[in-house]
Amino acid sequence: MEIITGGVTAAKGFKAAAAAAEIKYKGRTDMAMVYSEVPCVAAGTFTTNVVKAAPVKWDQNVIYNHPSAQAVICNSGIANACTGAEGYGYCKATADAASEILGIPADSVLVASTGVIGMQIPIDRIVNGVKAMAPKLDGSLEAGTEAAKAIMTTDTVKKEVAVQIEIGGKTVTVGGMCKGSGMIHPNMCTMLGFVTTDAAISKEMLQKALSANIKDTFNMVSVDGDTSTNDTVLLLANGMAGNFEITEEGADFDKFMEALNYINTCLSKKIAGDGEGATALFEVKIVGAKTKEDAVTLSKSVVTSSLTKAAIYGHDANWGRILCAMGYSGVQFDPEKVDLYFESRAGKLKIIENGVSTGYDEAEATRILSEDEVTAIADVKMGDAKATAWGCDLTYDYVKINADYRS
Amino acid sequence: MEIITGGVTAAKGFKAAAAAAEIKYKGRTDMAMVYSEVPCVAAGTFTTNVVKAAPVKWDQNVIYNHPSAQAVICNSGIANACTGAEGYGYCKATADAASEILGIPADSVLVASTGVIGMQIPIDRIVNGVKAMAPKLDGSLEAGTEAAKAIMTTDTVKKEVAVQIEIGGKTVTVGGMCKGSGMIHPNMCTMLGFVTTDAAISKEMLQKALSANIKDTFNMVSVDGDTSTNDTVLLLANGMAGNFEITEEGADFDKFMEALNYINTCLSKKIAGDGEGATALFEVKIVGAKTKEDAVTLSKSVVTSSLTKAAIYGHDANWGRILCAMGYSGVQFDPEKVDLYFESRAGKLKIIENGVSTGYDEAEATRILSEDEVTAIADVKMGDAKATAWGCDLTYDYVKINADYRS
Repeated sequence: MEIITGGVTAAKGFKAAAAAAEIKYKGRTDMAMVYSEVPCVAAGTFTTNVVKAAPVKWDQNVIYNHPSAQAVICNSGIANACTGAEGYGYCKATADAASEILGIPADSVLVASTGVIGMQIPIDRIVNGVKAMAPKLDGSLEAGTEAAKAIMTTDTVKKEVAVQIEIGGKTVTVGGMCKGSGMIHPNMCTMLGFVTTDAAISKEMLQKALSANIKDTFNMVSVDGDTSTNDTVLLLANGMAGNFEITEEGADFDKFMEALNYINTCLSKKIAGDGEGATALFEVKIVGAKTKEDAVTLSKSVVTSSLTKAAIYGHDANWGRILCAMGYSGVQFDPEKVDLYFESRAGKLKIIENGVSTGYDEAEATRILSEDEVTAIADVKMGDAKATAWGCDLTYDYVKINADYRS
Repeated sequence: MEIITGGVTAAKGFKAAAAAAEIKYKGRTDMAMVYSEVPCVAAGTFTTNVVKAAPVKWDQNVIYNHPSAQAVICNSGIANACTGAEGYGYCKATADAASEILGIPADSVLVASTGVIGMQIPIDRIVNGVKAMAPKLDGSLEAGTEAAKAIMTTDTVKKEVAVQIEIGGKTVTVGGMCKGSGMIHPNMCTMLGFVTTDAAISKEMLQKALSANIKDTFNMVSVDGDTSTNDTVLLLANGMAGNFEITEEGADFDKFMEALNYINTCLSKKIAGDGEGATALFEVKIVGAKTKEDAVTLSKSVVTSSLTKAAIYGHDANWGRILCAMGYSGVQFDPEKVDLYFESRAGKLKIIENGVSTGYDEAEATRILSEDEVTAIADVKMGDAKATAWGCDLTYDYVKINADYRS
């Protein structure tokens, strides 16, 4: 597997464009279009929130009931959530506009929105945006980057990544983009992620790959414990790599999974590290758990603990909060057997052994925790299962961003 | 029921004292002793965290295995959690010291600690503190207040309350004190709460009263979603009111429950309103739920949502976050039937009706949300069950307090 430059336009036959539609933001792009020259099989995973945004409902219909998809229209600024029948109608109007100008069926157009909940989107501006983007569609890497920038809300950096693998002698490319960075605690998948590939793969196997992988990637991210109404990851495969179609498990599927896992892991870490107000990516690894489920629960409990997150912001090796968060997770373990380490570019330090302090050097711990990517590793010594969760520190800026997000 | 001035010394026969033992803090009191002239029946509820502090284990033994208790020794500054066998030994040493100077059995001494996890307590200073407090024990209300002050950590105000009821022609007093204000998300009970009463009541009925009431009071508080290792509520009844002993359910038990409920509700709201860094008490009422369990889950999901809490801090009627938090709670309901209100001293406003905005006046909403006690009321229109949860806003100061709590 080779990591290459690019994002949603890295794979063959995919084009992208962006537009400044003034949906809510001014002076920046706020709409993105991703388009494949040929119809794609498409897979999707969506929020488990009972309150589902209109675009989630629209996309679920496209993914579950239609054989193919060919375009994605995304806007930032307004989430089109809690908008009733009117909001759903705007999804249809968006798809109709794209259908007309792109010459593809409306039910092969996926839509996605992110931003404020409860406001209706200005559909005329959305339609104008669609019309503006269609003629600008371009297969360059720069066009992919422009799309990744347009979907940002409180994100501070655009998030894209691409890799190449070889399947049956053919080069297959997988690329993706996503956006964070608040209301991030995916139960099913995260805010908005778009992954494109030129792999030839059946719709069934594509969904299987995405559904399996999401559990170890996007679902292991938490910025603030809030599972959004709009969480959506879409995966489009157009088959233009020319590999023999993947229709079952085996070596080819494994290779594709490896590439997809890299893309989704990378995008997940980008979301966590760019969490609202964050100064550090906080990675929590649980090893030695009795079951995978236990490891997942323990790692997510630590990564979502407000007290632990605030301590990470303060570069404070306040390990008691980590043990405390493991303790209230609901998983049974023996606190007096736990070993805990902190690790970063600056080194690795054993903090507790069998549940009590090792008498480690606080200055050394602070040095390790002062990096912008820090990892806590807890060994519960009950088995072989492990899991990794990603989050970020809790900062003044998180509060600032969210105390006046709508204004 | 009459609300009176006082706390743990309001009921007959209860005395208290405080000491500056320099366990971690300097220049303030950090130990409290509560003592009854005669042995009490005692009830307790404790943290559900797998990681239980040494004093929790000590007290569980006293409450579950011994018929009576007569004194409580509490220190702030160090939590005596994650301290292994050494830490448990210090609980015994504390009880032994109190036993000797008070002339009561060591297994009738309850202990409680709050503060930093993972440090050993300086047992010599604790013992000195016990010796200093015993001769100062006093039944005045002021002595109760001194005790309430000594157990504070990041609390900004002392928390105490007392009421009187009449049972069988006798005046019965119930009083209590507690401390917050971080790592507050009780699964079983909250940080530290001490309630004393001169009611005559059997140990069985006392525990029954506490266990039942805790679900609607302390367990409905969340400051930050972190369930502490030390959560403890202790309830001591010494029988000195002279009422006919309550040994079964009935009118007398109901009266006692009413008083206990008032005390615990009041203390719970004090903890929430004085949450670390908080500027407002945030109350969430769910009505019209299908089951009580649903109502509890929904209200706790809203009150723990970081995004909602930050919006409350910003006096921002960002109702989408409330609906979102209800949506990811795991409870099934129809978002398109929900009505939501904001209420405070400044008025009451319907914000959404049947899941969409009422087109309310934002300035009016902000005015309502600018009070220091604000309530969100959501009607899910599925039944008659309801629940109330208490939390607080998420502020810069929460981050500040917890980024450098240990330093």
